Amino acid sequence: MKRDFSKGAAWMRGEVVPVGDATIGVTDWGLTHADCVYDVVPVWQGAFFRLDDYLTRFEASVAAARMDVGMDRAAIENALHKMVAASSLQDAYVAMVAARGIPLVHGVRDPRACANHFYAWCVPYVHVIAPDKAKIGVEVHLSSTTRRIPEDSVNPLAKNYHWGDFTQGLFEAKDAGFETVLLPDHAGNVTEGPGFNVFALKEGRILTPDRGVLHGITRRTVLELAVEAGLTVEERALPVEELMEADEVFLSSSGGGVTPVARINDRQFSNGAAGPVGLQLRSAYFARLEDARFRTEITYT
Amino acid sequence: MKRDFSKGAAWMRGEVVPVGDATIGVTDWGLTHADCVYDVVPVWQGAFFRLDDYLTRFEASVAAARMDVGMDRAAIENALHKMVAASSLQDAYVAMVAARGIPLVHGVRDPRACANHFYAWCVPYVHVIAPDKAKIGVEVHLSSTTRRIPEDSVNPLAKNYHWGDFTQGLFEAKDAGFETVLLPDHAGNVTEGPGFNVFALKEGRILTPDRGVLHGITRRTVLELAVEAGLTVEERALPVEELMEADEVFLSSSGGGVTPVARINDRQFSNGAAGPVGLQLRSAYFARLEDARFRTEITYT
Ligand SMILES: Cc1ncc(COP(=O)(O)O)c(C=O)c1O
Ligand SMILES: Cc1ncc(COP(=O)(O)O)c(C=O)c1O
Repeated sequence: MKRDFSKGAAWMRGEVVPVGDATIGVTDWGLTHADCVYDVVPVWQGAFFRLDDYLTRFEASVAAARMDVGMDRAAIENALHKMVAASSLQDAYVAMVAARGIPLVHGVRDPRACANHFYAWCVPYVHVIAPDKAKIGVEVHLSSTTRRIPEDSVNPLAKNYHWGDFTQGLFEAKDAGFETVLLPDHAGNVTEGPGFNVFALKEGRILTPDRGVLHGITRRTVLELAVEAGLTVEERALPVEELMEADEVFLSSSGGGVTPVARINDRQFSNGAAGPVGLQLRSAYFARLEDARFRTEITYT
Repeated sequence: MKRDFSKGAAWMRGEVVPVGDATIGVTDWGLTHADCVYDVVPVWQGAFFRLDDYLTRFEASVAAARMDVGMDRAAIENALHKMVAASSLQDAYVAMVAARGIPLVHGVRDPRACANHFYAWCVPYVHVIAPDKAKIGVEVHLSSTTRRIPEDSVNPLAKNYHWGDFTQGLFEAKDAGFETVLLPDHAGNVTEGPGFNVFALKEGRILTPDRGVLHGITRRTVLELAVEAGLTVEERALPVEELMEADEVFLSSSGGGVTPVARINDRQFSNGAAGPVGLQLRSAYFARLEDARFRTEITYT
């Protein structure tokens, strides 16, 4: 029987299956305690982008969560290759996940005594912000009621599924007619949004939060591209007031690269359009996706 | 083929299956955004305990999460009955879950546009603290580095799977030789632990946190039993210092009732044993489990 990979593929326990058949048990702590760490690497025109950087971050997340999935980097890379090749996807969103699993003895509530496991899945490339909106500048809600989960509650550097604050913020944003949301922290600094980091441009300097946020690989690419373009970059706490006084604001994500922001709440940036530096970095990002130095080609069979 | 329900049963899409066969998709936002609300009702000697109260709380959680699972209370109650009856379990941990599901259109990141769904599962009764330890008084670690996720990040009243803070705290506790963990909030008050509420007894008054915690049904039972026993109860912020100066401390959970605490960090309570009021409430709780007024009998077929 020919299997249908048109919606994507998954790697589960050594086997490649259609993504719709990939499941985890309802008693897995990965689900019941949101006890997963994960990463998402983009595949663009038949190659992984910055694969080593994503794998390094994933390994750091797994270590931070004190999991052992019993697979080394080569085995994980191999699984991802095999899965994407089977899917035939040339442009893909590729997720790799480490889940806590279930306790080795029923009822024993010790996270050290669980059978951790690895799986992966891929679907057609996801744009966190739809490209038509990204090109003209996206409208963003900055929440005044929901705050990002603080780093002394859940470590944001270990990429994780604790998205309750983002989901709440997304409801607020969508209800108010915005596309997406940015969350402040409890000290009044801006942090990040559901799937992206944020940048403010002020008089030729690019500012981006360094604490209480995931260190995005796209964030890193943006900072590198900015330096190459002769801009100054600063990674530090970014007060909401300073964000709102920026010349331009933009977002970064593996799901769509760089997205200029046209508006946050009732403040317009770049006269309510995509700003020139944001657009320039957006183009530079897509060019970099095609740069051989950052690509790991996939052999489709 | 006779199916094996010895490890428990699940209700999935109208069908009762062995719990080990119950899974959810790896792309379900219930998993990838920890976007589930749930509840857990105990079954004791063949009857649900306080079923209406648990169902009411579950419905409130579903509403707070703005989900619609397309089933009314009677349908949910019916699913739970059918499932537990099929499992043959007389003493069970019964979980009911509402999950966000997947977006109706691939790549559209709107929590309002997902196919929410309900499922349930049951396993043999779980004691959050092993009974042998509960009887002699449990040793608890109060974290000084990990804080409970604040209520303006994730709503603790809508029972949810955001357990990253508890998991981190459990690692700290287990590493230091303690059984479980209690988390403070960012203001220096104690909140709750992985699966339980906390109480302090001081000079005949019982104090328990009211904010930043789940309002446990067992917590409610304990407060009712305490009032019936002539004690005064206060629901309010409970500073860590006040907790540490208590005459007795105990925990409450649907997974095991009332558990006296013998020690928190290097402070012993009740001379390092289970305190008399905690033990009395523990017995009273188990007696109440057998009280017909609170029981909904299950018809096993
Ligand atoms: C919370 C959060 N912040 C930032 C990002 C952006 O990181 P990256 O550029 O590595 O995709 C993501 C990606 O999903 C994220 O989930
Ligand atoms: C975070 C949390 N607090 C408290 C409790 C205790 O609530 P209940 O008495 O309803 O079981 C639970 C139960 O699982 C819980 O998960």
